[in-house]
Amino acid sequence: MNKITSLFNIKYPIIQGGMIWCSGWELASAVSNAGGLGLIGSGSMYPETLEEHIRKCKKATPKPFGVNVPLIYPQTDELVKIIIREGVKIVFTSAGNPKKYTARLKENGIRVAHVVANTKFALKAVEAGVDAIVAEGFEAGGHNGIDETTTMVLVPMIRDIIDIPLIAAGGIASGRAIYAAMALGADGVQIGSRFVASRESSAHESFKKTILQTGDGGTQLSLKKLVPVRLIKNEFFQRVRQAEAAGAGPEELKAILGRGRAKLGMFEGNTTEGELEIGQVAGMIDHVLTVQEIIQSLVNEFNKTAAGMEKLHID
Amino acid sequence: MNKITSLFNIKYPIIQGGMIWCSGWELASAVSNAGGLGLIGSGSMYPETLEEHIRKCKKATPKPFGVNVPLIYPQTDELVKIIIREGVKIVFTSAGNPKKYTARLKENGIRVAHVVANTKFALKAVEAGVDAIVAEGFEAGGHNGIDETTTMVLVPMIRDIIDIPLIAAGGIASGRAIYAAMALGADGVQIGSRFVASRESSAHESFKKTILQTGDGGTQLSLKKLVPVRLIKNEFFQRVRQAEAAGAGPEELKAILGRGRAKLGMFEGNTTEGELEIGQVAGMIDHVLTVQEIIQSLVNEFNKTAAGMEKLHID
Repeated sequence: MNKITSLFNIKYPIIQGGMIWCSGWELASAVSNAGGLGLIGSGSMYPETLEEHIRKCKKATPKPFGVNVPLIYPQTDELVKIIIREGVKIVFTSAGNPKKYTARLKENGIRVAHVVANTKFALKAVEAGVDAIVAEGFEAGGHNGIDETTTMVLVPMIRDIIDIPLIAAGGIASGRAIYAAMALGADGVQIGSRFVASRESSAHESFKKTILQTGDGGTQLSLKKLVPVRLIKNEFFQRVRQAEAAGAGPEELKAILGRGRAKLGMFEGNTTEGELEIGQVAGMIDHVLTVQEIIQSLVNEFNKTAAGMEKLHID
Repeated sequence: MNKITSLFNIKYPIIQGGMIWCSGWELASAVSNAGGLGLIGSGSMYPETLEEHIRKCKKATPKPFGVNVPLIYPQTDELVKIIIREGVKIVFTSAGNPKKYTARLKENGIRVAHVVANTKFALKAVEAGVDAIVAEGFEAGGHNGIDETTTMVLVPMIRDIIDIPLIAAGGIASGRAIYAAMALGADGVQIGSRFVASRESSAHESFKKTILQTGDGGTQLSLKKLVPVRLIKNEFFQRVRQAEAAGAGPEELKAILGRGRAKLGMFEGNTTEGELEIGQVAGMIDHVLTVQEIIQSLVNEFNKTAAGMEKLHID
């Protein structure tokens, strides 16, 4: 029992990040059933799709689960209404300003965590009244901050200035990394990439297979002149990189990006022309596993690491 | 006693990174006297300067110390000759190919460690016969790899494929970060930035002061089309950034860089026009301390972290 397990009433301080195109009700409920906290990623959903996923998730698990809401889309109001109406008890917000929705969510008995990538936004989130902070480092997949601060540096930096529960994200796909994150000051972790390559994720099988083939150095933070996003270095990425190296501005990059690239790659399985959002830890993911297998191996490796570190001191 | 302390015959598994313009005999001997391993950074030295620093270092400490040698300069042969002739017992090589000098150094009874930023070069270094690997993450100051893999991801990745002692570098300036690095699989750590802002470092006082003022997000990996280097975002950096954003190629960047920028900023104290190489942890460095104070606080915080983590397990 620690601050995160008691805040969310879960068994393990392990949260599955809400990810576009990958984390629907099936993944979220599986994670919650396995003792973690599953999050439905609403960023890629129409309001009615989210409603359906919440209803299915409630049927699939008696355990707490939540919804991730990026605060940058026009339909955020609609999504928040559905979340409240459906009685969801946990919301993770990301991007955007946490001031706008935190009070309303909390008035409705919802626990709120907000994802940040620097100290400034961590303080703003605390000021907005959130219950927990997710500190997400540069190595994380998908959208990322502009400061490029890594988990190793970001977590202690934020720990030093906030008192509320802290969740580390970015670069965590193993039990030893969970243990390291806790040594740095985190109370729990949010894991994305490892769960994308799970049986229960809604990522396309071709995307999952591409993750297994991705090695050390196989991803890069891209599209920094728009919104920075960590992508697998496929053909689409290379085209963006060439344009960026030649000095392409935001308009030109928007034209190359077009619409629906993330869906194309991650959900429809076009691994050459789609955006494939994944973290640096893809280089350590070699098998698609069930959520139950993933959680068990994380817990076992955590405890093995803890046992190995016992009595360690320098003198 | 662990693999790193016994390999180098030191008290603490803490190595001070050999850095251009900052780590001469005064810093290296202070670190060795305090129980760590001090390294003279030969990257900014003429052969006769290195000889002088080695001789002064021998007089200043009876403890083991070493020299860092970047393998990319034309005078490397000269530097290696001096190191052997002066009886230095430890060499850390970085950049370049470890095959060329490792055998010769080892024939002369020298322990050799090599700095890498990805798994491929870690395996090459093992093949070359080095005694230890330094795995340096993206968050580190100064020159860096092209893969941008962070310490959190790089250390376990390399741990999984090598059996020889492993030293983590990048993002480490506190005892909890040392503890986290060890949880990730490292046997010891190499610390640069924290020692730049020490009394004994030869960094210019204005550079040290600028480090104290550098906050979260105050550095960025720059000049990626030449050799990637993490710099403080000063006026010189901004000029490079603008040129890069506009698509400047290597030749144009070389012209902007000119010669002697690192010396100008780090040694001569021109903090607006010089290159200021420092890691992301600059954001957590608020005081210039003596080496003795730094080492003691690292050790104390390490042991405090270890005590706090004791009995931690999830079930």
